[in-house]
Amino acid sequence: MEPLYVINFKAYPQGIGKRAIELAKTLDEVAGETGEKIIIAVQPTDIARIVDKVEIPVFAQHVDPITPGPHTGSIPMEAIIEAGASGTLLNHSEKRLRVCDVAGVVRRAREMGIKTIVCAGDEYEAGAISRLKPDYVAIEPPELIGGNVSVSRAKPEVISRGLRAVSPVPLLVGAGVKTCEDVKKAIELGASGVLVASGIVKAENPRNAMLKLIGRM
Amino acid sequence: MEPLYVINFKAYPQGIGKRAIELAKTLDEVAGETGEKIIIAVQPTDIARIVDKVEIPVFAQHVDPITPGPHTGSIPMEAIIEAGASGTLLNHSEKRLRVCDVAGVVRRAREMGIKTIVCAGDEYEAGAISRLKPDYVAIEPPELIGGNVSVSRAKPEVISRGLRAVSPVPLLVGAGVKTCEDVKKAIELGASGVLVASGIVKAENPRNAMLKLIGRM
Amino acid sequence: MEPLYVINFKAYPQGIGKRAIELAKTLDEVAGETGEKIIIAVQPTDIARIVDKVEIPVFAQHVDPITPGPHTGSIPMEAIIEAGASGTLLNHSEKRLRVCDVAGVVRRAREMGIKTIVCAGDEYEAGAISRLKPDYVAIEPPELIGGNVSVSRAKPEVISRGLRAVSPVPLLVGAGVKTCEDVKKAIELGASGVLVASGIVKAENPRNAMLKLIGRM
Amino acid sequence: MEPLYVINFKAYPQGIGKRAIELAKTLDEVAGETGEKIIIAVQPTDIARIVDKVEIPVFAQHVDPITPGPHTGSIPMEAIIEAGASGTLLNHSEKRLRVCDVAGVVRRAREMGIKTIVCAGDEYEAGAISRLKPDYVAIEPPELIGGNVSVSRAKPEVISRGLRAVSPVPLLVGAGVKTCEDVKKAIELGASGVLVASGIVKAENPRNAMLKLIGRM
Repeated sequence: MEPLYVINFKAYPQGIGKRAIELAKTLDEVAGETGEKIIIAVQPTDIARIVDKVEIPVFAQHVDPITPGPHTGSIPMEAIIEAGASGTLLNHSEKRLRVCDVAGVVRRAREMGIKTIVCAGDEYEAGAISRLKPDYVAIEPPELIGGNVSVSRAKPEVISRGLRAVSPVPLLVGAGVKTCEDVKKAIELGASGVLVASGIVKAENPRNAMLKLIGRM
Repeated sequence: MEPLYVINFKAYPQGIGKRAIELAKTLDEVAGETGEKIIIAVQPTDIARIVDKVEIPVFAQHVDPITPGPHTGSIPMEAIIEAGASGTLLNHSEKRLRVCDVAGVVRRAREMGIKTIVCAGDEYEAGAISRLKPDYVAIEPPELIGGNVSVSRAKPEVISRGLRAVSPVPLLVGAGVKTCEDVKKAIELGASGVLVASGIVKAENPRNAMLKLIGRM
Repeated sequence: MEPLYVINFKAYPQGIGKRAIELAKTLDEVAGETGEKIIIAVQPTDIARIVDKVEIPVFAQHVDPITPGPHTGSIPMEAIIEAGASGTLLNHSEKRLRVCDVAGVVRRAREMGIKTIVCAGDEYEAGAISRLKPDYVAIEPPELIGGNVSVSRAKPEVISRGLRAVSPVPLLVGAGVKTCEDVKKAIELGASGVLVASGIVKAENPRNAMLKLIGRM
Repeated sequence: MEPLYVINFKAYPQGIGKRAIELAKTLDEVAGETGEKIIIAVQPTDIARIVDKVEIPVFAQHVDPITPGPHTGSIPMEAIIEAGASGTLLNHSEKRLRVCDVAGVVRRAREMGIKTIVCAGDEYEAGAISRLKPDYVAIEPPELIGGNVSVSRAKPEVISRGLRAVSPVPLLVGAGVKTCEDVKKAIELGASGVLVASGIVKAENPRNAMLKLIGRM
């Protein structure tokens, strides 16, 4: 099965504003040249400016559990959709949400026709979230996020247990994923794709880093 | 003194996406025709698309207390600046912040050269915030927000006490402000301007509502 | 099956301090006289003083997702256990928690031998929570909490759907429960018990209110 | 001037339940023998059980910004007062609060006759808080909390600047305070006392640690 690559720009300096637009275009070219499935998750301020320059799906990194109305400083799903987002990450370890809010946002996303990738730190959290039927559950052991050891190598059991916990919702895995071996291992164990951030966004040469990740370099 | 009009688009359906762009252009025209000082505070997803279409300053409604780095789902000041914002609202009653976060964001805004309008619910909160030296403190009695009775009429003492509490930081007032009498009264009492949301954003004819607010219609 | 009655003292004036101790003793007497299963959930400040005066189980209303250590102002499970609590409510609509925190606290409670009753607002949230295997899931439609119409009468489908969603975890229901008919209906539909707050705590005569609730008066 | 010693039990294992009661009695004996002013800040579950065994003032570590009513899992000021607390810490770096909540709780504490010690991380935050007129402002540079280098030695300028920022509200300082030289230095610089946690609570012999801190051993 073809893996899905979700590239999370976070709030890295390399993933904001003009640099985010350049990075998005680079990843879009790689997707075009190789036929790989790449999704990017960007700052809300950058969604509209990136969407009109790339073919790959552009996701938000979060959306607030509100409907349009008097909510200063909160972002409703309508705002990211109007900006052109086709989905959103949710509940990342850097932005954990309440059960009721994950439930509400996932349901609303389904009604409004956008995708959700909901993060979890372990198979227990992942199992609970899978009951809400997001499009993907992504397990990222928090202690490996941002590091150099990948989840596939350090904690393969997280993937196999995670699969059982979230089935039939497809599973993504993340944290420390940097090489195409990391990806292969994850896919072999049953994952549908990977979540990557620093490995691509902070790379000196993101094009090469992405090509290496997908095994074309 | 010329009053400052801060129009907060909130997350109103009329203040998101295409409708936000139209509304921004309308208010920009009014500012151009009348010479009045108008600032708009919009969704982060809309900043960049509005900034290149208007002359009036575009503010964010909030910015997260983080610096660029691994913070999925949080918006650093750099992101709104890159999108073209020249300032931000902070601590609105719909998004109250911790003391340490108001302190940190106001200081950072000063260093990075953007403006801050920090909201407060009463003169005590306003007084504390004024010590952090934002560009403006805005007092909005929460019980009047979104209603039809203006702070100038219902609670003129909030303005006079607020002035003493925040001096020498200039004071804005808000909540229920809809007519040019509301504005005049506030300015007479010493305020430097007003915060308005539903009165303009939800008006059937925002152009007329804005013209009325500034006393040209 | 014998229903379980969980009486939530909340932060009602009648449920704090000396009045909480009196109320606890009253409910304990009713439990002793009637043989009914009653649990009370009280302020953390009152746990120790109530535990040594009653036979019925005393629960906390919440416990923070921390382990003992440098956490000023947060209450670890060890603190409520030392005070004599035998369980805790969690995720009440007035104190919703993040998925990761419900997961962590429920797991820890199991390891440390205390019970958890985890609240949910609907069958979706309840289903997700049931995967974490708390001792009970309690569904309370937020719009009915504190009102005079019971969930059993106004929304019987919440109970039947809730049962399917949480099975095999036993289900409690709450919100507006005030009469023994409300309880009977809930039990008939398959619930294992009820959550009650204002109906008992704010009653002029809590003893009579409790006797009525269990159908002995 | 006689320094005030505020001993924060946090959620340390040594500061919970039976061990908290023993620690409180030990510190109370030291206060009785030496005439020093010692305050302890304990878990809410322990307030009532400690209050009836000691003479020294017992504080809460936090109180929620609510008034009595339907607030499951939140602790109103009435609950800690009923339990016997004579004051509360607020806004500790491990439990930072919103501006509006510090303002509300400090005002309420004054009305209800209990004391507040409000923490701050630097002189800016401290200055803002001082405007709310708590009984004390306590500055603790977060990076020194729990460490072995005291604020008086590492950052004496925090104390002098803090004093100017909070005047006329008296200033406490904390973070890394372990020796009587640390205390002396702080008092010389103008502080009214110190906040100490691990230095006493985690000491092998808290009695000796306290005696050393006050310079009697």
